[in-house]
Amino acid sequence: MNETNSTKMITTKEAADWFAERDRFLILTHRRPDGDTVGCAGALAQGLREFGKTAYVLYNPEITPRYLRFVGDYWAPDGFDAGYIITIDTASSDLFPKNGDEYANKVSLCIDHHPSNTLYAELTCLEEARAACGEVIYDILIALSGSISAKSAEHLYAAVSTDTGCFAFANTTANSLRVASRLVEAGAPHRELNRLLFRTKTRSRMKIEGMINSGLEFYFDGQVAISTITTIMMETANAEEDDVDDIASLPGSVEGVRVGITIREIKSESDCKVSVRTSPSVDAHAISERFGGGGHQMASGFTLNKSVPEIKEALIETLKDFFPAGTPA
Amino acid sequence: MNETNSTKMITTKEAADWFAERDRFLILTHRRPDGDTVGCAGALAQGLREFGKTAYVLYNPEITPRYLRFVGDYWAPDGFDAGYIITIDTASSDLFPKNGDEYANKVSLCIDHHPSNTLYAELTCLEEARAACGEVIYDILIALSGSISAKSAEHLYAAVSTDTGCFAFANTTANSLRVASRLVEAGAPHRELNRLLFRTKTRSRMKIEGMINSGLEFYFDGQVAISTITTIMMETANAEEDDVDDIASLPGSVEGVRVGITIREIKSESDCKVSVRTSPSVDAHAISERFGGGGHQMASGFTLNKSVPEIKEALIETLKDFFPAGTPA
Repeated sequence: MNETNSTKMITTKEAADWFAERDRFLILTHRRPDGDTVGCAGALAQGLREFGKTAYVLYNPEITPRYLRFVGDYWAPDGFDAGYIITIDTASSDLFPKNGDEYANKVSLCIDHHPSNTLYAELTCLEEARAACGEVIYDILIALSGSISAKSAEHLYAAVSTDTGCFAFANTTANSLRVASRLVEAGAPHRELNRLLFRTKTRSRMKIEGMINSGLEFYFDGQVAISTITTIMMETANAEEDDVDDIASLPGSVEGVRVGITIREIKSESDCKVSVRTSPSVDAHAISERFGGGGHQMASGFTLNKSVPEIKEALIETLKDFFPAGTPA
Repeated sequence: MNETNSTKMITTKEAADWFAERDRFLILTHRRPDGDTVGCAGALAQGLREFGKTAYVLYNPEITPRYLRFVGDYWAPDGFDAGYIITIDTASSDLFPKNGDEYANKVSLCIDHHPSNTLYAELTCLEEARAACGEVIYDILIALSGSISAKSAEHLYAAVSTDTGCFAFANTTANSLRVASRLVEAGAPHRELNRLLFRTKTRSRMKIEGMINSGLEFYFDGQVAISTITTIMMETANAEEDDVDDIASLPGSVEGVRVGITIREIKSESDCKVSVRTSPSVDAHAISERFGGGGHQMASGFTLNKSVPEIKEALIETLKDFFPAGTPA
């Protein structure tokens, strides 16, 4: 990718003025689209249309049924002659959907909240303190027209609530809650959306969670929890990739656990993917590094060409260095 | 209980003025104390003390370790000579803790949000539209002193967030989110509290959830889910009553389920408690009524002196009337 890093940083107010003076916008979402990118794209397209503009969202081939309702009304028709390319919640042009590669060097405005943004666009509106990009879009739409419609509010509620785990994740701020409150006032159907997004699980998810929970193993006086997902478990639960989304956070949610490990069998009895999640007091990166992997302070991972029992044994041996005072069993 | 129903209704502003003119308050929480009653009591005691008043909370013998931190600093010493008795989040004097029975006819002010409040106090400040009593206490403290301390904010965040299921329950309103936003601004440690209250489970909870999830049975084309909790499961998971709090909502959280039933064995192979949770389209009360129980439109229950398999069979037979088009299996 050719990224120039000669972007101009602009505020949400300047972004609103920029939109007001132009027309024919094509909005791009990121790969493996989540509620934030999709909700923001839908809300921005909706808000721009209400302001009299022509705005579409580039079809994202990876869209899941769960998030389609927030963006499905805005897909660009074939041959739409875009005047300006906008990206949302997309830190680098590597994250464009496959069918968006051609726009890598043609982005007029990037709206984002990731500190890792590579500043690939001509203009960048980056608000790093925001938990969700939805909070940035909210400010832009308010600056643009002074209010927000029920439809935009619905899309933005999806954005803000999913990126903050329904306001329970550590990234949640007073502003996330304030914006959510305004969106509910504006008519976002938060009851229905909360049920859909946070209080409903697929049967397969329920089943695989059940198997993981009842099979959790604890070591080092309960400070380490190891969960295992075998290919047979996935088959038994009839589970797809979507059903195990964020499942690596599960062992770490047990009281007293400081290291939560998930061993996922990729091929039966040989290849495994291991995810390590830690509380701030333990370095997740350092653990995975021992196995040729890496990552961040609180989330890391590695893959190994070994069986589940072999990996478990190796992990416990390694973790002795991290819990010198604790007994493994 | 002698309840006079000759209460005088007052606003949050009037309640604040009433507090300002008096002193020596004893605050009562309700039986089986939850985050709302306890957080409100702690916040009110704290706020009144900051305003120069003497305020204590009557010890609640049923307090759990989870909620102690929000109220433990305010327990009344033996022999505290209370000038005024205040109740919080307590719809009737039947709900007083055992050691509070003597105050049944002596309550000066009741602060509540339950529409079912029996108006047993001399003065009642009742805000039925509020999801949490914490939102009512927030308004009173703001009316009293114009701002809220970090300590009061911490207690109130526990109140508002627990009563709304971290803003995911259907009772959540724009005001709940607005108040939460203000509390975070005032210094409530929401990250730590969210982790403690919503993102951490006991090992026993994890285990019993695991067993329930993997044992869920579906009927009527997936519209009915039945979960079973046997005494043996409870023993295996080493689970206490606290570990199965709100567990009846579990089967109803599966995609497509309209009736979620939990059969809980009380005595091995004989007595069972059955909880029925439904989506708005099915009458939970009508189902439980068939078995001599009852309740509300979306939540009901009954007890039966039968074994789990017998109850399951009887339920499926009865549910045929509620799902005439569906096939049981």
